[in-house]
Amino acid sequence: MTRAAPARATEGAEERLVAIYRVRAEASAIAARAQAIAIEQSVEMPLPAIADARVLAEIVGRVEGIAELGPGLFEVRVALAVATTGSEPGQLMNMLFGNSSIHDDVVLHDVELPAKLTAAFFGPNRGIAGLRKLAGAERRAMTCSALKPQGLPPQALAELARRLALGGLDFIKDDHGLADQAYSPFAERVTACAEAVAAASHATGRLTRYVPSLSGNLDELRRQVALARAAGLEMVLVAPMIIGLPQLRALVAENPALAFMAHPALAGAARIAPPLLLGKLFRLMGADATIFPNHGGRFGYSRETCGKLAEAARRPWDGVRPCLPVPAGGMTPERVPEMLDFYGPDCMLLIGGGLLAAGERLVEETTTFSDRVARHGFR
Amino acid sequence: MTRAAPARATEGAEERLVAIYRVRAEASAIAARAQAIAIEQSVEMPLPAIADARVLAEIVGRVEGIAELGPGLFEVRVALAVATTGSEPGQLMNMLFGNSSIHDDVVLHDVELPAKLTAAFFGPNRGIAGLRKLAGAERRAMTCSALKPQGLPPQALAELARRLALGGLDFIKDDHGLADQAYSPFAERVTACAEAVAAASHATGRLTRYVPSLSGNLDELRRQVALARAAGLEMVLVAPMIIGLPQLRALVAENPALAFMAHPALAGAARIAPPLLLGKLFRLMGADATIFPNHGGRFGYSRETCGKLAEAARRPWDGVRPCLPVPAGGMTPERVPEMLDFYGPDCMLLIGGGLLAAGERLVEETTTFSDRVARHGFR
Repeated sequence: MTRAAPARATEGAEERLVAIYRVRAEASAIAARAQAIAIEQSVEMPLPAIADARVLAEIVGRVEGIAELGPGLFEVRVALAVATTGSEPGQLMNMLFGNSSIHDDVVLHDVELPAKLTAAFFGPNRGIAGLRKLAGAERRAMTCSALKPQGLPPQALAELARRLALGGLDFIKDDHGLADQAYSPFAERVTACAEAVAAASHATGRLTRYVPSLSGNLDELRRQVALARAAGLEMVLVAPMIIGLPQLRALVAENPALAFMAHPALAGAARIAPPLLLGKLFRLMGADATIFPNHGGRFGYSRETCGKLAEAARRPWDGVRPCLPVPAGGMTPERVPEMLDFYGPDCMLLIGGGLLAAGERLVEETTTFSDRVARHGFR
Repeated sequence: MTRAAPARATEGAEERLVAIYRVRAEASAIAARAQAIAIEQSVEMPLPAIADARVLAEIVGRVEGIAELGPGLFEVRVALAVATTGSEPGQLMNMLFGNSSIHDDVVLHDVELPAKLTAAFFGPNRGIAGLRKLAGAERRAMTCSALKPQGLPPQALAELARRLALGGLDFIKDDHGLADQAYSPFAERVTACAEAVAAASHATGRLTRYVPSLSGNLDELRRQVALARAAGLEMVLVAPMIIGLPQLRALVAENPALAFMAHPALAGAARIAPPLLLGKLFRLMGADATIFPNHGGRFGYSRETCGKLAEAARRPWDGVRPCLPVPAGGMTPERVPEMLDFYGPDCMLLIGGGLLAAGERLVEETTTFSDRVARHGFR
């Protein structure tokens, strides 16, 4: 007993997370640069000016490793005190990349969190298994499309939703541009679309789910969640980098039955590796599904980045439920077999404009998409 | 009357803001790329698939101009419908740069807002004149330092605050790394520091103001604002890109007597021009003062960027109060004359580590800094 108690106390006080940066520097300068990052991301002041021994021992960031990845490119591992995060999402981001985000020679590449900190955030409410249950899809990949363009009135969006639902999709999400605009207020739009999808779903016998896009501050987000739940909905869409991660975390915690889909708006420019931000961190803060630009579409993510992002979202992780990868962005039904071979069955394919371009043939084209996903033979 | 009424209605429905992007492209490709950005930032789908005439006329983004700035670099002006923003901060960011943030050939350079939209956000509560009143500084530049390192207990931070206040500073802010951590809970820290600064301020006869750093979700931010106000404080620090702009806007609106200082944490990597994000947009959402990395310190902003940022924060703008530029980041008292010559009297100089390095001589060094700023002869 006497031995165990101090050991725990010490362990708790000194517990560290590891932030992994990719840094461009000359070989002769990297040691000093790594040390500067460790200080910038912890005490942010000259070490000789710190008198407190505990701060020097337990709070100052520690360079744990430097590895050369190629000419002028290094991986730097910095151990930061878990206690500095206060187990709060915003403060975690602050510790990982607050000031260093302003230095353009640094990318936040990855992070390793002790299980205790991971548990404090706890991740998705439903996870991939929960989404499979929502969609009634036991083993196959899932499908999704988007309601757009913004500017349409609620009834026109509801009619689109009805036709997409008749095409047998699993999820129909709002375009992330649909907010609470005068020409299509959130309450009217969500009620109309939820009813249209429910009716079509009843007709097809499929469990098609409508996923409204939330926006605004935490008060407004909560009002919108309440409206969505009153309309019988079980999943919502948010852009975590626009609403702020602390708000995502709050919504996930106070709505344990609700599933969350994350949208990458404003997240692309953050010089944080996409597998970390859109895969790992959004999952940690509670995204059950994460939308990202598929390779070969109209965004620049490579095949390798997409693969790593899907892996970060899905791999086993200290009891945090897996998050469903949702590749999107300029996709077409023709690419279904190739995408499913690449991502496997644990994914959701999102095709928006590529379906809506079918015009009068929207239901037929959507049906082709749904069937192609359902019938795909995984190798 | 008959003439005026339809004119207003048309104007209202078609009212536009202008987003200004800097785009890297071949000259032969820029027209198509500009059009693609206009679509990405509005309807996000192929135009032929849009049947609604009103959406095509009023909602689709319009390329208003393309200018070559140099070989392979273009300025693209895109007019976006004001109605799409719903006058909400997050949705405004979404419309300006949501998906395009993922395209690394694009920088959001500037934005021109119609007066009606500017008025909807309304900007700072106090502005530069309000901060001058708080500091009792009629014409001179103002001074600031930071409490750090994080990891110190509340009483040690309060002792630091006391000594900095004895040095005659105008503002003493928390390091942005101070959150609500177990070793220094927000409530204890803020109470202790507020008391220490009030006592020292009484002794010196100067109006030194303590500015605590807020963090967390909107509920937590509100609780911290209440604690700060209960401690008699009139200004707080937030990192808008961490808490999310919608939360900043909510706090500013519901605390009309409170002043806000913005910190650039997590804002540096956003590929949004610093004068726009840290100067114009933070001001629009309510920052009375905005901290940014001064040129020649440990961050990479150029002298030109800093000058433009200060200009964006201060210039006359449709009745929006000006925001005080706060250059910081590796500054020293030696640089005071040069910085004041560059920024003029409407600024606040922030020196953190450069003062704290004085150790036992902290009060003297701080006094030197305060005096140097107070006595500077502006040319």
